[in-house]
Amino acid sequence: MAQYIEPRVLKGFRDFLPPAEIERRLLIEKIEQSFRLFGFVPIDTPALEYAEILLGKGGGETEKQIYRFKDHGERDVALRFDLTVPFARFMAEHRHELPLPFKRYHIAKVWRGENTQRGRYREFTQCDFDIVGTDKSAADFEILLMMKQTLSAIGVQNITIRLNHRGLFNRFLHRFGWLPHSVEILRTVDKLAKIGEAETRDLLANLVGQEGAATILSYIHTEGSYEETLRKLTDMAGGKDSDTERLETLLQFMKDLGIESSFVLDPSITRGLDYYTGVVFETFLNDLPDIGSVCSGGRYDNLVALYSREQLPGVGASIGLDRLLAALEALGKETAPRSFVVVAIACVDERQGGRYQALAQQFRAAGLACEVFPEPKKLSQQFALAEKKGARFMVIPQEGESSYTLRDLSSRENKEHLSVDEMLKLIRQTGSPVMPQNKI
Amino acid sequence: MAQYIEPRVLKGFRDFLPPAEIERRLLIEKIEQSFRLFGFVPIDTPALEYAEILLGKGGGETEKQIYRFKDHGERDVALRFDLTVPFARFMAEHRHELPLPFKRYHIAKVWRGENTQRGRYREFTQCDFDIVGTDKSAADFEILLMMKQTLSAIGVQNITIRLNHRGLFNRFLHRFGWLPHSVEILRTVDKLAKIGEAETRDLLANLVGQEGAATILSYIHTEGSYEETLRKLTDMAGGKDSDTERLETLLQFMKDLGIESSFVLDPSITRGLDYYTGVVFETFLNDLPDIGSVCSGGRYDNLVALYSREQLPGVGASIGLDRLLAALEALGKETAPRSFVVVAIACVDERQGGRYQALAQQFRAAGLACEVFPEPKKLSQQFALAEKKGARFMVIPQEGESSYTLRDLSSRENKEHLSVDEMLKLIRQTGSPVMPQNKI
Repeated sequence: MAQYIEPRVLKGFRDFLPPAEIERRLLIEKIEQSFRLFGFVPIDTPALEYAEILLGKGGGETEKQIYRFKDHGERDVALRFDLTVPFARFMAEHRHELPLPFKRYHIAKVWRGENTQRGRYREFTQCDFDIVGTDKSAADFEILLMMKQTLSAIGVQNITIRLNHRGLFNRFLHRFGWLPHSVEILRTVDKLAKIGEAETRDLLANLVGQEGAATILSYIHTEGSYEETLRKLTDMAGGKDSDTERLETLLQFMKDLGIESSFVLDPSITRGLDYYTGVVFETFLNDLPDIGSVCSGGRYDNLVALYSREQLPGVGASIGLDRLLAALEALGKETAPRSFVVVAIACVDERQGGRYQALAQQFRAAGLACEVFPEPKKLSQQFALAEKKGARFMVIPQEGESSYTLRDLSSRENKEHLSVDEMLKLIRQTGSPVMPQNKI
Repeated sequence: MAQYIEPRVLKGFRDFLPPAEIERRLLIEKIEQSFRLFGFVPIDTPALEYAEILLGKGGGETEKQIYRFKDHGERDVALRFDLTVPFARFMAEHRHELPLPFKRYHIAKVWRGENTQRGRYREFTQCDFDIVGTDKSAADFEILLMMKQTLSAIGVQNITIRLNHRGLFNRFLHRFGWLPHSVEILRTVDKLAKIGEAETRDLLANLVGQEGAATILSYIHTEGSYEETLRKLTDMAGGKDSDTERLETLLQFMKDLGIESSFVLDPSITRGLDYYTGVVFETFLNDLPDIGSVCSGGRYDNLVALYSREQLPGVGASIGLDRLLAALEALGKETAPRSFVVVAIACVDERQGGRYQALAQQFRAAGLACEVFPEPKKLSQQFALAEKKGARFMVIPQEGESSYTLRDLSSRENKEHLSVDEMLKLIRQTGSPVMPQNKI
């Protein structure tokens, strides 16, 4: 046995068998279609880049998790660990070839050698979308609307998008003289949902004293309504500024579309540390709050800061596809078929293989996925295999006849002596899935 | 300037800007749809695997080209350099979970640190499809038909698929006592198209003498027709056997579908060395023969030999997506749009951003991709940007009116005081692209 290599995959990596991969691909297709309807265009960047580019000035967690090595030319290279850093590099390099504002999406795998946990993998798919080259409210709003719309397109209507404004938070911290501690404060507040109010209070008290902790807890508390919360935040930050106006404008836009009930102004949302400067947001499924945010993002002043002296403001978000898939499964919303096959053609006589394919071509031309069995096994075995393959119908060609028997594998009924047109008609009446025609 | 990192990608790697990426994605979508119509299902495997698994017993070229390194746990890992080895590992691991014959496709990136040349990259996309678990002619034929059909679906009709049978070739070599040299002979013959007949003759003469070289050149010469070539090969191999029957059956199947003119029996096709045991084939574009084969493959006795004692015969092929894209470009067949956008909505008043999005949602609901401009620039600038973004129409909302001006950016004509329904009707009349609905 020693000559065989044991087939296995690395810890934190996964094979996708057809049922899971079909679900993933159909989900991605629906997400992409939603993005395209908003005028977003796809880009792609290499999986492997210079480590210097990917790590930037960074270090810390990222440095520990990144897959980094020397290539054949002794270059210091690494696998991308997100799609944001490559996008920043991409924009710095190509911005003069692209019409601004530029709206891109990028759905691709990223790799992080971090500790594996339930639902956390070392290879996973991100799904990013951004509008860069404008700092207008309309761009913030488009991202928020597209998040809502895209989740709706995949069957998830009951969501809450929680948003906050990093600039407003910073004004509040500045007013109380806590800006020097802002990194620790934002990090602590970000953990509120995880660690609870008591522990948050203790951690904050270490930084700004008991009274300060109480003030911050009062700031990050969500009031009854978006307007009430905004009024409180503005007061505590020292009065109205452009950040308040931004949040007011966004609320007005939400009202214009009648979608304001899906949004909560939540000052405890801070989203990481250095990157974001304006609105930040996270998306929660109301029927499954424990799974955490399935789509998060925010506005940043300057995407390309690391790679260019020019400024490029933007706003964007990212869907964690693996978490979303887990959520859909938990919600019982996965609806993907096991295969695309509608019709299977039984093999009665091996020498008729060409004619079976000619028959199959007629189903395929009508948009019906069709499987041709290559081996003349017993019909009962072929029925069983067709069911396993997800087919609804089986065509049984009769020797020396130009008509066919059509078996409905769900009702187990046979209809005999049918022409191809008659079979097509019967199959269409069942509403079996027809392949979309690529019109674009 | 020293604080900026120069944005650049590694040699042999590429960014895909939207026009190229849209073309790539739409091509992949059409290829996938064709595969699905034949009942093939997608799988996915990790980009990173144990080096031992990927390299198998191999070595040589592969070993030199593979991106291999130690991960955080000091595991010896590597990036996949093709999709065949991971598929073999996948089947050895999961075959009892899958109905046989199993028909899978896998479209994904692979990495090879080889020397870069024009059109050859270190990161490229492969597109594999296989039927495993059956040794029947019908499976060989389905792969051949699907190759032809898939190229036809992307607009490439004028192709020639050249096929051969490795078993027949081996019988011929055995008969003349040249089987010990078969590896070198097959390798030499494989280069015939590249190095020419004279050099091939010299190389073969070194192995089997002048007379032997003449015999092999006579063997690998394609005669007038499939039948004539097959008769000669069978004679030279010492008479009829199952390999001749296989090639006869395939020809009969081709005739049953009336597609035999696309196939040539070409005994100079050998396709690599160890892997294939039955029919092998390469696909050439008649209008662009110099680009080489865009889709190649063959039949193998045992996919999982490295990872399991069980047998698993199969047949499959691979489309080189990057070469195919280069070919489509050379043939002037790229037809992808620069973007998906049909309609752009002008920004006249920034505060109306919500209403513009509400309007856009009506176009999107009709399947028309719609862009909303966030900045109230001069209309002439917005027209120019809309054209750059690939929009055909621009909607200009008038202040305080519920009707709109629709500008056809191709004719530069305005139509005024239109309702949304009237705009939709006018846009549809132009045959502008409508997003397909995901029915599956």
